[in-house]
Amino acid sequence: MPNTERLEKIAKLIRYFSLISTTEAGSGHPTSSLSAADLMAGLLFGGFFRYDAKQPNHPNNDRLIFSKGHASPLFYAMWAAAGEVTEEELMTLRKFGSRLEGHPTTAFRFTEASTGSLGQGLSIGLGMALNAKYVDKLPYRTYVLLGDSEMAEGSQYEALQIASFYELDNLVGIMDVNRLGQRGETMYGYNLAVYEKRVSSFGWETLLIDGHSLPEILTAYEKALTIRNKPVMIIAKTIKGKGVSFIEDKNGWHGKALNKEELARALKELDTVDTAIRGEISKPDELRPAEKVSQKAAQISYEKDKSVATRHAYGNALVRIFPQFPEMVVLDGEVSNSTFAEIFKKAYPERFFEMYIAEQNMVGTALGLSRRGKVPFVSTFAAFFTRAFDQIRMSRYSDANIKFCGSHAGVSIGEDGSSQMGLEDIAMFRTLLDSVVLYPCDAVSTERLVEEAAQYKGIVYIRATRKDTPIIYDSNEEFRIGGSKVVRKSDKDAVTVLGAGITLHEALGAYEELKNEGIFIRVIDLYSIKPLDDAMLYKAASDTNSIITVEDHFAEGGIGEAVRSALADRDVPIHCLSVRKVPRSGKPDELLDYEDISRNAIIRKVREIL
Amino acid sequence: MPNTERLEKIAKLIRYFSLISTTEAGSGHPTSSLSAADLMAGLLFGGFFRYDAKQPNHPNNDRLIFSKGHASPLFYAMWAAAGEVTEEELMTLRKFGSRLEGHPTTAFRFTEASTGSLGQGLSIGLGMALNAKYVDKLPYRTYVLLGDSEMAEGSQYEALQIASFYELDNLVGIMDVNRLGQRGETMYGYNLAVYEKRVSSFGWETLLIDGHSLPEILTAYEKALTIRNKPVMIIAKTIKGKGVSFIEDKNGWHGKALNKEELARALKELDTVDTAIRGEISKPDELRPAEKVSQKAAQISYEKDKSVATRHAYGNALVRIFPQFPEMVVLDGEVSNSTFAEIFKKAYPERFFEMYIAEQNMVGTALGLSRRGKVPFVSTFAAFFTRAFDQIRMSRYSDANIKFCGSHAGVSIGEDGSSQMGLEDIAMFRTLLDSVVLYPCDAVSTERLVEEAAQYKGIVYIRATRKDTPIIYDSNEEFRIGGSKVVRKSDKDAVTVLGAGITLHEALGAYEELKNEGIFIRVIDLYSIKPLDDAMLYKAASDTNSIITVEDHFAEGGIGEAVRSALADRDVPIHCLSVRKVPRSGKPDELLDYEDISRNAIIRKVREIL
Repeated sequence: MPNTERLEKIAKLIRYFSLISTTEAGSGHPTSSLSAADLMAGLLFGGFFRYDAKQPNHPNNDRLIFSKGHASPLFYAMWAAAGEVTEEELMTLRKFGSRLEGHPTTAFRFTEASTGSLGQGLSIGLGMALNAKYVDKLPYRTYVLLGDSEMAEGSQYEALQIASFYELDNLVGIMDVNRLGQRGETMYGYNLAVYEKRVSSFGWETLLIDGHSLPEILTAYEKALTIRNKPVMIIAKTIKGKGVSFIEDKNGWHGKALNKEELARALKELDTVDTAIRGEISKPDELRPAEKVSQKAAQISYEKDKSVATRHAYGNALVRIFPQFPEMVVLDGEVSNSTFAEIFKKAYPERFFEMYIAEQNMVGTALGLSRRGKVPFVSTFAAFFTRAFDQIRMSRYSDANIKFCGSHAGVSIGEDGSSQMGLEDIAMFRTLLDSVVLYPCDAVSTERLVEEAAQYKGIVYIRATRKDTPIIYDSNEEFRIGGSKVVRKSDKDAVTVLGAGITLHEALGAYEELKNEGIFIRVIDLYSIKPLDDAMLYKAASDTNSIITVEDHFAEGGIGEAVRSALADRDVPIHCLSVRKVPRSGKPDELLDYEDISRNAIIRKVREIL
Repeated sequence: MPNTERLEKIAKLIRYFSLISTTEAGSGHPTSSLSAADLMAGLLFGGFFRYDAKQPNHPNNDRLIFSKGHASPLFYAMWAAAGEVTEEELMTLRKFGSRLEGHPTTAFRFTEASTGSLGQGLSIGLGMALNAKYVDKLPYRTYVLLGDSEMAEGSQYEALQIASFYELDNLVGIMDVNRLGQRGETMYGYNLAVYEKRVSSFGWETLLIDGHSLPEILTAYEKALTIRNKPVMIIAKTIKGKGVSFIEDKNGWHGKALNKEELARALKELDTVDTAIRGEISKPDELRPAEKVSQKAAQISYEKDKSVATRHAYGNALVRIFPQFPEMVVLDGEVSNSTFAEIFKKAYPERFFEMYIAEQNMVGTALGLSRRGKVPFVSTFAAFFTRAFDQIRMSRYSDANIKFCGSHAGVSIGEDGSSQMGLEDIAMFRTLLDSVVLYPCDAVSTERLVEEAAQYKGIVYIRATRKDTPIIYDSNEEFRIGGSKVVRKSDKDAVTVLGAGITLHEALGAYEELKNEGIFIRVIDLYSIKPLDDAMLYKAASDTNSIITVEDHFAEGGIGEAVRSALADRDVPIHCLSVRKVPRSGKPDELLDYEDISRNAIIRKVREIL
């Protein structure tokens, strides 16, 4: 057992750093930092945490995630106490250009994942622990610092259940129960028994401790190492603002920095701070995951004109490209027989993780895996990704490399009705900076675009269709992010129709019927919705007098608005056909007609224009 | 205790209806319906449920919500067994135009809320129970039928904790544990003890029963009535497909209708079905909520040029307009001191409900309150509404009348950084059919628009700003949904700048500086983003040579794209300034400059155009 006197000194230094940096910033969360200072000092410098600060990306480093991201002053102070951040840099906290942002972001090299939206850290840690135990097979451990307030988020219980389901005994949660939330007391205050009962009911080992007693803290970390086949939650009773009497356990001090005068009083209370002392962090064993060799993916061969659902091709593609992308892992939310992720599960069961009906945790877990160098493909119904919009949004700020596949897009799913129809998914994924949104219309383009998605570093969304659609491309046809295909073209095209996915086939149907009347339309497969193929759009705008977009999605934030933005500086009229009525149950064709996005609707619109 | 023989007969009739209707439809979920048939027969016709079928909206009717919405065949079959749906209509299940959709929607008069996205029914029921106990003060009870698979959703645990926090002894959950999910077994199969331990750890009374024994079922409902100060969960062990041997407890039968031949075999097994028998539902006591009298809201009076945050004006407005809208209730997600909903809480504590950091449940609860005639105002940080996108999306399909207020919009919040910045909220709320999106720039317009929101029947989103902004309008100025204000105008305007919220003030700053150079711009306050003021936009398009939109939001699905759609048939160039870089921590002005949405950015763009 390490010398706790020395740790007490380091904890005091961490408190000191947390206080001076927030006062300098004029804002921030000192009280939420002080409550967890002893817990973090004990973890980082008590000999339990193994981390090579010179190699933050070392595959066998232990991982620490601040789920309570507002305690960032503590996070930065810890690393200052480790000698990795200078006092000078500490004083740049929250200033423009500083790596030390208001909530931890990946701009700071020791941040495992950007946090600040509460209730997400445990899922991210779960992903890292899953990676250690089942993928990289390394002994590193993952620690997650949690606030008591954020235990109200349902996502926490999603993570608790999946972590115990996968028996993650390499995952340790540290719950900082300081009783006070932002605007007052939490639902349970200091009733730690409630947390213990709940967390253990989810199959976790629980350890109740005084979060300001270093001996108890060290004993808990030691005990945690001995637990097998289940995760451990250390539930620590702490005091918000601990160490500064006039802010201790006081309401109204959340997210408030001390002014200069208050700081002076606080520092007087801290008494002598050894500002020269620095903590030692143990080094990890020099272990790395087994080398993974990449082999070229097999060729694809689909019979042209045969009908195959793009969601089915998605499943086929995952199996086909895995040899080429050995860092791939596949997650699905209890619908793998609908998304066809089950094809991958059957071929590579050790790389498939069933996430059950808990989409928030599924996305958080994918982020954790991504941050450990994996390439997660995550699937559920397009509609149900809305469940995890906050996790998706936050994953962008962690530079995630995740591929999302949403099946059952649009009203064309038919009888199941509105609750199952993804009609906002394009708008949602388009909002993410630098995101890629792909929407293939047949099996060949799906296979190719899944490959492109795996190549691309970043967030990619693949929109898949429920019903079978005819294969219109040769198996050797090539597709690229930012591309498009002109599938019908003549020198007398009156109008350009931009379709994608299901509506591309409606456009082709309209083409045939109009051709019989001697009306020719250009039909373009807009399989890359973000980025768009601007060059092709410009050409269509100059070649034809008007453009029609057709999408099985709501108008707002969809394909029509994307195209209008891309052609903002061209004065070609753009007519947008999209879902504008509350969808109902019915046959796919009935619904496409009802929403005016069918071949008939396209034909009507073309006639109206001419 | 009612005669169970008769109930057995009715349960058999319900099974019969569930089977024939799904076979006729050729799809649907018969097996998920059969597992809960006895539970529902016992509830509806066992004398416990009190409902006047002639008055579905009777304020004192008990409420039943099918959280496992895919069991809709059972739902419709129950009402057929009650004599409220003809066998003929039953056979229209899932057909276009039928009220009997694939998942229950409000098109069917006995549907309390549209369901089908799992894990939402308990929150909706919580809202209805909250209404009964604290608002309408009526003795009606709310029952929620839950699947075991959907218990993986975190939203369930958000609802469990809040329901026990509010001691809702008028809320009864009925968990149909049939062991099988869509693609296989649930995490816990028939381990009912796990559910019991978990649910009771959240403060609920739990009753374990055999879900196919009517005596046990009736005893449980009777017992449930006697529990005080806590909600009750009946955890029933059931068999998926119960009653038809060859589909009982079999994997691969989820969401699959029997073909004609299988149906014949199934009906032979059901043996004699009394198709003439109908069940009796008890009537509710003739009670109604106390009359609420509406008085005109007080006048507003703000000092012009004084600076007040719009989020603060939101809080003031709630208190001011409550007398005029006595059906109002206010919900907040543990940030009422930031959204200023706390001002309402202090004035009308009995109408304020703290929802803690659990946004999914907060929105589901608001839907339940809305379906009982209340007008919920729901607030949190704009960014955190993304947490509840699925619930928001689904609330639209229940014709919700909910007002959302998102504070801390955009990068202008400053130091807290990206995790706290709402930059996708406009895109998200715009996707909802018929939604209204409002974005006031000062306290006066906020007060007026909160009033307009309360008037409007439907979903309204109000976007609020963190920092204080100067009041630019007289207190008697009028604002309307679909309106806008021309705040700077001359006969030599070269460019029109469309701002909203924080950026309107940036546009005004740009106006002053450009004026000194003899350049005049028209400045318009686009406070109603959806619907837009088309007439004004057309006028600006014809009066000036180009238009600039400026928004503290990402480009996709935001104000720029909305304006481009509105002006699609005009050929005025539209330049869109929006957030296009990963935001950082910093001072509001530094961040507005960094993202090129500040007065300086507007000035640069205007010069570039001229």
